[in-house]
Amino acid sequence: MKARVHVMLKDGVLDPQGEAVRHALGSLGFEGVNGVRQGKVIELDLAGEDPAAAEAEARKMCEALLANTVIERYEVEIL
Amino acid sequence: MKARVHVMLKDGVLDPQGEAVRHALGSLGFEGVNGVRQGKVIELDLAGEDPAAAEAEARKMCEALLANTVIERYEVEIL
Repeated sequence: MKARVHVMLKDGVLDPQGEAVRHALGSLGFEGVNGVRQGKVIELDLAGEDPAAAEAEARKMCEALLANTVIERYEVEIL
Repeated sequence: MKARVHVMLKDGVLDPQGEAVRHALGSLGFEGVNGVRQGKVIELDLAGEDPAAAEAEARKMCEALLANTVIERYEVEIL
């Protein structure tokens, strides 16, 4: 069972990495880049065949380790 | 126009970050984690309204900056 987790900074939290990418794209000649937000994508290969159980487990992993829930939000997708 | 880019290591390329996360999850008591792969997700806020043009531009950005195409693969999704 595969789960894909997206971890992004919450809206309103400054994203210095995203800003750096935006500036770099500008200096490479890419116009029209109004904003860039960068986060993590984590693909989990989990034992078991029950999607609901896999999603619940992945959410627990996000709360325990994968996301800093003070400044980050996460989405879990079962593939 | 929003584009979401996933940048992941190519299959077969060792993912030390993913391995570190797998070990950490194990030590936190999460069983059944067969594998972890970690990558980047980049959300681009692009000017313009044409999805095809936005996708082409995002692909160019991946080739130029966002992905190291020697060891990474990327997927572009227009939101």
